[in-house]
Amino acid sequence: MLAEIISIGDELTSGQRLDTNSQWLSRRLGEIGIRVLFHTTVADDIEANVRVFGQAAERADVVMATGGLGPTADDLTRNALAELSGRKLVLDENALEHLRAIFAFFGRDMPENNVVQAMFPEGSRMILNPNGTAPGIDLDIPRKGRSPARVFALPGVPAEMKQMFEATVLPALRQLSGSLRVIQHRQIRCFGKGESHLERMLPDLVRRGRQPSVGITVSDATITLRITAEGASVEDCQAAIEPTVATIRECLGDLVFGEGDDELEHVVARLLSEWGKTLSVAEWGTGGLVAERLQSASGGSDLFVGGLVVGSPRTAHDLLGVPDSLIAERGANCGEVVEAMAVGCRKRTAADWSLAVGPLPEIDRKASSADRVFFALAGDEGVAVRSAPLVGHPDMLKTRAAKQALNMVRLALLRQR
Amino acid sequence: MLAEIISIGDELTSGQRLDTNSQWLSRRLGEIGIRVLFHTTVADDIEANVRVFGQAAERADVVMATGGLGPTADDLTRNALAELSGRKLVLDENALEHLRAIFAFFGRDMPENNVVQAMFPEGSRMILNPNGTAPGIDLDIPRKGRSPARVFALPGVPAEMKQMFEATVLPALRQLSGSLRVIQHRQIRCFGKGESHLERMLPDLVRRGRQPSVGITVSDATITLRITAEGASVEDCQAAIEPTVATIRECLGDLVFGEGDDELEHVVARLLSEWGKTLSVAEWGTGGLVAERLQSASGGSDLFVGGLVVGSPRTAHDLLGVPDSLIAERGANCGEVVEAMAVGCRKRTAADWSLAVGPLPEIDRKASSADRVFFALAGDEGVAVRSAPLVGHPDMLKTRAAKQALNMVRLALLRQR
Repeated sequence: MLAEIISIGDELTSGQRLDTNSQWLSRRLGEIGIRVLFHTTVADDIEANVRVFGQAAERADVVMATGGLGPTADDLTRNALAELSGRKLVLDENALEHLRAIFAFFGRDMPENNVVQAMFPEGSRMILNPNGTAPGIDLDIPRKGRSPARVFALPGVPAEMKQMFEATVLPALRQLSGSLRVIQHRQIRCFGKGESHLERMLPDLVRRGRQPSVGITVSDATITLRITAEGASVEDCQAAIEPTVATIRECLGDLVFGEGDDELEHVVARLLSEWGKTLSVAEWGTGGLVAERLQSASGGSDLFVGGLVVGSPRTAHDLLGVPDSLIAERGANCGEVVEAMAVGCRKRTAADWSLAVGPLPEIDRKASSADRVFFALAGDEGVAVRSAPLVGHPDMLKTRAAKQALNMVRLALLRQR
Repeated sequence: MLAEIISIGDELTSGQRLDTNSQWLSRRLGEIGIRVLFHTTVADDIEANVRVFGQAAERADVVMATGGLGPTADDLTRNALAELSGRKLVLDENALEHLRAIFAFFGRDMPENNVVQAMFPEGSRMILNPNGTAPGIDLDIPRKGRSPARVFALPGVPAEMKQMFEATVLPALRQLSGSLRVIQHRQIRCFGKGESHLERMLPDLVRRGRQPSVGITVSDATITLRITAEGASVEDCQAAIEPTVATIRECLGDLVFGEGDDELEHVVARLLSEWGKTLSVAEWGTGGLVAERLQSASGGSDLFVGGLVVGSPRTAHDLLGVPDSLIAERGANCGEVVEAMAVGCRKRTAADWSLAVGPLPEIDRKASSADRVFFALAGDEGVAVRSAPLVGHPDMLKTRAAKQALNMVRLALLRQR
């Protein structure tokens, strides 16, 4: 079973926006054994859309499209599908009702031009979008001498698209291909070393053709080892995966922080909860990102006591009591300042532990020994200070520093065991 | 002059790697007046490659390809181009010499399978790659009754590809079309209404064929109007764009918050700086996101005094002084609590203005009137409280709420004028 992915929009062909949907869909399709041979991106042009959908329906069995389902004149996916399948667009009363309910909820009248979002090619099925106004379209395109191609058109907004894929498209694909073998995955999540360093700590797991297969991906310094087994049943797959997991855990030790979709903050929250301890954070360079992660992961419980965010020497003094003289003498980017931040935060928030992140170093093309970020963790037994070199694209630096800070807490909590 | 971009590789169609080359090339081509109608991504499959190149050469005048130029068996671009143009692959002695020199520089012998990287379809031109072993290919594909299509095949490594585009492809494209027209863009950024509502406030600007053209895109509730003009010179284009910008600004009023890549926080920072005022924030539902944005935008100045992040009734009491009894009586999600947060924050941080974001409503599939987020802004003249309905995917809710909070400050600062 082959698939083609179509992305629609001038903002993509003009380079104004980066297409990340095609990659995501390719991965998800690959995971259920459907191979993707083509991605096609097409501008908001009705003729080009009809041709692209027609070609995809010829060379692929499953066509996944994203974009072009909005209410405005340049949203043409429904028209292209109607033209290609030779059907009229007809109003779907259920879809219209769902649309009106969404607008009613916001206390607004539904503009007349949104009605078009409830129009579907005759004979197609609506794909419910619980999070937005654009429903998706599920349509068969007949092919001479072959079973029809199945087209799923989803909105381009990634969060809406993903939800709809998981809830509606995935079950339909499973049904479509009853003969699919079972594929199971397990993800091991690691932090603290680079990809090639980590690969050298493992025996030869990543080689081509190994069963189960092991893939490595890196995202913002978090490394995911993805183990994939194919077999006749879920149980077979899981049994095949288990020994590889054990090997990885043995080789990597506390570089492994979790499984599945775990992030560092989830592990920190679990450890805090296990020990009955509370944590607060004082942030300079990360500007609130550590607080945001901890607050999300703690789910409204009191284990995350709160966060204090500062942005200048003056505010570090006013909110956290870092002495002006210290910064004047030593500069903001040093162990003493971050230590004072952690101690000041712990005093103000009365948490068991307080984590502090110092300012980011000045971004400088030439990496120098001054390009370090300082972290401190204050607790009952005093304050520990660490630093880490930090170079890279400015967009990444904050996330990296937030993860390093959370990892410092994780390792400290593990050592308490 | 139309272009098509082709990306080649299993790692792209399988979703293992994200394609960023197509976006970059689209932008660069757009900037010199070449419109891109299609991106096509194709797996490492010789037949599929020949078909994709053939189709591109039919429907576009310029074909930019990346990938498939390495030395291994799955690198098929040179074979596909040879097959399509009906030419043999022949050894280019200059290219071979360049290859040997690169290996010599690294002190290594050149493996025999690298020789293939010096093979070119007869009659094509080599594109020098100063940074890697894979040279590019510049080839004409004859077309019946039309001038030939020009194909530029570059390696997939972004840094190598970009260098080669700028140094070799760009001058060739300029020469190819002495008559290239200039394209200019301008972006107007809006917040506060839905896409279709906003479109109805404008005269018929988004219609197809209008000059200059206007496109609408939405990203996390921020709406971008992109005006594009084509003309003989940059000045002509700018003159053509100006009246459309004026119309948009007149129709949308303070829904327009900026231009280009402006975000709400940049505008808030500019207004604060203009008025010589300072701001602090107290966050519950947004967990630090507003602080993070303000801290970034304020660039280390004292106009952002700091952020306080809380995550539970107890921490709202301890850090911000919100009375326990108030939350016990009224619940956390109400105007009184967010008002107390703003007042408490202003007292603790001694800022001119303090912005507070209440907790996010419990995520509930059934939309109800309780699904609102409350915001408060405390200043010299007292406290203003607002609320907004908030539904959607949980991943979006925090960003939405952060933007609504920032917009509340923006509007308050504008009214001070």
